[in-house]
Amino acid sequence: MASEARRLAGSLRTDHIDEEVVLKGWVQKRRDLGGLIFIDLRDKSGIVQIVFNPDVSKEALRTAESVRSEYVVEVRGQVVKREGSTVNNLIKTGEIEVLVSDLEIINKSKNPPFLIQDETDVSEDLRLKYRYLDLRRSTVQETFKLRHRTTQVIRNFLNDNDFLEMETPILTKSTPEGARDYLVPSRVHAGEFYALPQSPQLFKQLIMVSGFEKYFQIARCFRDEDLRADRQPEFTQVDIETSFMTSDEIMDMTENMMQKVMKEVKEIELTLPLPRMKYQEAMDRYGSDKPDTRFALELIHISDSVKDSSFKVFQSAVENGGKVALLNVKNQAANYSRKDIDKLTDFVKVYGAKGLAWLKVEGDELKGPISKFLSEEEVVAIKNKADASDGDLLLFVADKSSVVYDSLGALRQKLAKELNLIDENKFNFLWVTDWPLLEYDEDTERYSAAHHPFTMPMDEDVSKLSTDPGNVRAKAYDLVLNGYELGGGSLRIYQREQQDKMFAALGFTPEEAEEQFGFLLEALEYGAPPHGGIALGLDRVIMLLAGRSNMRDTILFPKTASAADLLTDAPSEVAAKQLDELSIQLNKKNDQKS
Amino acid sequence: MASEARRLAGSLRTDHIDEEVVLKGWVQKRRDLGGLIFIDLRDKSGIVQIVFNPDVSKEALRTAESVRSEYVVEVRGQVVKREGSTVNNLIKTGEIEVLVSDLEIINKSKNPPFLIQDETDVSEDLRLKYRYLDLRRSTVQETFKLRHRTTQVIRNFLNDNDFLEMETPILTKSTPEGARDYLVPSRVHAGEFYALPQSPQLFKQLIMVSGFEKYFQIARCFRDEDLRADRQPEFTQVDIETSFMTSDEIMDMTENMMQKVMKEVKEIELTLPLPRMKYQEAMDRYGSDKPDTRFALELIHISDSVKDSSFKVFQSAVENGGKVALLNVKNQAANYSRKDIDKLTDFVKVYGAKGLAWLKVEGDELKGPISKFLSEEEVVAIKNKADASDGDLLLFVADKSSVVYDSLGALRQKLAKELNLIDENKFNFLWVTDWPLLEYDEDTERYSAAHHPFTMPMDEDVSKLSTDPGNVRAKAYDLVLNGYELGGGSLRIYQREQQDKMFAALGFTPEEAEEQFGFLLEALEYGAPPHGGIALGLDRVIMLLAGRSNMRDTILFPKTASAADLLTDAPSEVAAKQLDELSIQLNKKNDQKS
Repeated sequence: MASEARRLAGSLRTDHIDEEVVLKGWVQKRRDLGGLIFIDLRDKSGIVQIVFNPDVSKEALRTAESVRSEYVVEVRGQVVKREGSTVNNLIKTGEIEVLVSDLEIINKSKNPPFLIQDETDVSEDLRLKYRYLDLRRSTVQETFKLRHRTTQVIRNFLNDNDFLEMETPILTKSTPEGARDYLVPSRVHAGEFYALPQSPQLFKQLIMVSGFEKYFQIARCFRDEDLRADRQPEFTQVDIETSFMTSDEIMDMTENMMQKVMKEVKEIELTLPLPRMKYQEAMDRYGSDKPDTRFALELIHISDSVKDSSFKVFQSAVENGGKVALLNVKNQAANYSRKDIDKLTDFVKVYGAKGLAWLKVEGDELKGPISKFLSEEEVVAIKNKADASDGDLLLFVADKSSVVYDSLGALRQKLAKELNLIDENKFNFLWVTDWPLLEYDEDTERYSAAHHPFTMPMDEDVSKLSTDPGNVRAKAYDLVLNGYELGGGSLRIYQREQQDKMFAALGFTPEEAEEQFGFLLEALEYGAPPHGGIALGLDRVIMLLAGRSNMRDTILFPKTASAADLLTDAPSEVAAKQLDELSIQLNKKNDQKS
Repeated sequence: MASEARRLAGSLRTDHIDEEVVLKGWVQKRRDLGGLIFIDLRDKSGIVQIVFNPDVSKEALRTAESVRSEYVVEVRGQVVKREGSTVNNLIKTGEIEVLVSDLEIINKSKNPPFLIQDETDVSEDLRLKYRYLDLRRSTVQETFKLRHRTTQVIRNFLNDNDFLEMETPILTKSTPEGARDYLVPSRVHAGEFYALPQSPQLFKQLIMVSGFEKYFQIARCFRDEDLRADRQPEFTQVDIETSFMTSDEIMDMTENMMQKVMKEVKEIELTLPLPRMKYQEAMDRYGSDKPDTRFALELIHISDSVKDSSFKVFQSAVENGGKVALLNVKNQAANYSRKDIDKLTDFVKVYGAKGLAWLKVEGDELKGPISKFLSEEEVVAIKNKADASDGDLLLFVADKSSVVYDSLGALRQKLAKELNLIDENKFNFLWVTDWPLLEYDEDTERYSAAHHPFTMPMDEDVSKLSTDPGNVRAKAYDLVLNGYELGGGSLRIYQREQQDKMFAALGFTPEEAEEQFGFLLEALEYGAPPHGGIALGLDRVIMLLAGRSNMRDTILFPKTASAADLLTDAPSEVAAKQLDELSIQLNKKNDQKS
């Protein structure tokens, strides 16, 4: 129809009045009013109102009568000023409209299964099945524009800092450590499998051994785990590795990058350096290794004051090597009934706590079921340490340390939400450092790597690797934002001898280490430079920047909690011939569709 | 040792004379000479000579004696001017050297299995096993810097043109059309499989249906095919899709992008618009749908002139619907013996030709075994059409059209190389347009899509889809560079009805189409915009820009022709427990390692 170049609907302003324009887009809404037809026309830039008037074109008006929501149309028309009361200040084009002289229907649409609008209460399953309609909603479109801008800022920053973007393989070797691998049967090598990478960890270390010194990749990673709300079988990480840099230099570089992201994407000035906190302090103060520091409500430790208490729950927790700690919920004594506190008790039980003791501050006194067991000195000590005053509610957990941390850490977060203590406009970044290198697994009765087996121990702790492995700290650092782990990194072991010792501490025989990681061990013998890096979970970064609470909102075609794609119906059955070629067969019991 | 900031070895110049610098890097080479030790120190920026002199530091000299090739060292020293005859103009730092006062060995290296040098004749298998050493060679490092710069230029161009970079899934649905899929067994959905994408084709179309209008991705793609020299099981494509743009607009945009790449990466000014040639013309003139236009040596068609020839080979080829064509190899009659021509005959037989007839031009005459069968008129016609003159060698193939094209097209390329007709400094881009939509497969006796089943037929040919499918042309375009296909694209079908007809032409029943592509067909019913795009093979682009002839040189960790990674030893056997969890088992006959 039109030879003129197309204009974007959302770009039209009063400057364009009297111009003749061509628009292409989707029908958001049609209203018939007083012999006229009004259509909200939507394209990727936004919405403009177009008007069909019989005085301008009877033919266009007639065609407009057949137009329905989500039809794709092309129109030509003149930009005109809206009359006073018809101005719509809710949209940027609200001071003008387009008087249509020509209308062409480019493609029709069936009636969509749900309305394309910003807020929707349609079930997520239906939205995922018709993801291409869900993605038309402007709030969703904004998330992906933000995702694009964020990766572009990150890439430009790293490019300006002499990093090379490099691609590591997706078809790689299975290493049974860590999470479960996705496997890919090989056709050529019958009986053998590739694995999809859980991260490019080993490859990025090999890139350092290759002498590139500064690598990054916005890398797809895969984990075949049972999914939680914020997990996806495939996810994306900003993967960075450098040679010859210290932990501090890597953290500095990373926070400069995040400063740039916050400024260019959110127009927020991040003050550097970002606060840093040691792992143990984070656990002690917040009961979490990824504390949300937007609010206080910190853990208060009273083990010393109650270790001889006649309240046996406190006394025995300390005696058995555990802890007693409390949260002081300021001014909330009156607002929490016994029933409310019972609910909180149920909540902390999920985290392994056997109970939740409580006291209310009334004047100078502590009142509650356990008060009678506490001595005068204990009451004074608790009040002092907790900075308790009239009307406060004190909530106690006494248990082994991990349970005290986990339960009070979670309770702290829950109460902050309930009591509206969180300023949602804050972006509180925090580095957590000085992590333990190893974790003891009580089930398998052996140590496993807290991050991964390539993390370097702190120099002063190296000697403890064989004697006291639980107390070896790592040259590792995590970046936390608002209570979420954005990612983490470390310096890596770059000498074969030390890597051998690390595998030994993890209970590998030399043969097992060789079998699984022989290529890395060998690479360390050919002039590996000191190196380290970081990986940030891009999906989670986007989720927080976009103010979403669900990771699926940040992924274009996400999978459900059962790792299914409802749009394409993946995974699905395949032809017997395909399995034959791969030299595999289904287990008999699963031969029929599950 | 050093608190000063590190300097890069390759960055030092005469400007830095007298400066004290800290360097970190690898020992490229050590020479002991007259009580001094000279080391070529290499880092990612290049090489500088460092000198150990007992007058500066006896201790550093002593340590230097233990240093071997590929050790990682840190040195402190003073930049000094080299004496006249010791200046080395082969390296950029050749006018200076660094007099070392401190040396620390950061990591040792075993004697590497091959020398780290620009040119190497070590077997590729050994280089791939020790890829991290192979990657240290400066020519190889340059390739990956070029790859980074190229993708950065492409991303910035597309960003500036309002494209959004978006990530499509790697775990997706198997569609048995096209090449063989890599499959991934699902653990949660026992007996079902994901497939790795051969391209993001369907997802990028769905992104258009989602209303994003301009998408790109530097996308990993997977094909489980038997590999040739320029194929890899996983490869990367620059994947672009747009809505509401014409073929011409997409080609214009793409060539603007390539112009930017050539300028910023190769400092070459590309003249636009790029030449465009219809598929049929490319076949007729060059015997190839991706002609190398850096040299002439075009096919000369003489079917009309020899259709009644008494040389039966010519006459019957034409009678049976085939062709007769020749190459005129100018001035080479004297240089090709009968034995040489026999070798060329063997060469064309690989492409299905039954033989290679030949004539040499001697004065006004055509001499050779077939000359006696040709009439005076035929000789005149051949000489005129071929513009033949004394000393030329004429090489004929008479066969069905596809054989004539394939064999002479390949012969043309072979002769150009042998005779040095190719200017290696030229970058001859070419668009090939007006492709056939469908190809007839004589084995299966059905049509298949020449590009893919979503390509739009030309408007004027639509009606032939059911009556004369072999002559329907597509709205498709390929970008060719120096005889290689960089990639291709098309406008896509955006209306359900037309897509249904296309599947019918391809021999799908409606049920089969629904089973495999139902989600796309349904999406086309909800207001799909007109859309189209292009995909460029990034690995091949890099290969040509870097002047390499092997795609493996452009991939960081490539796989061999049997799709194996010699470094990590992938694919490999996996634990029985892993297979159990995936509800699959190996076929009995393949239970032992192949």
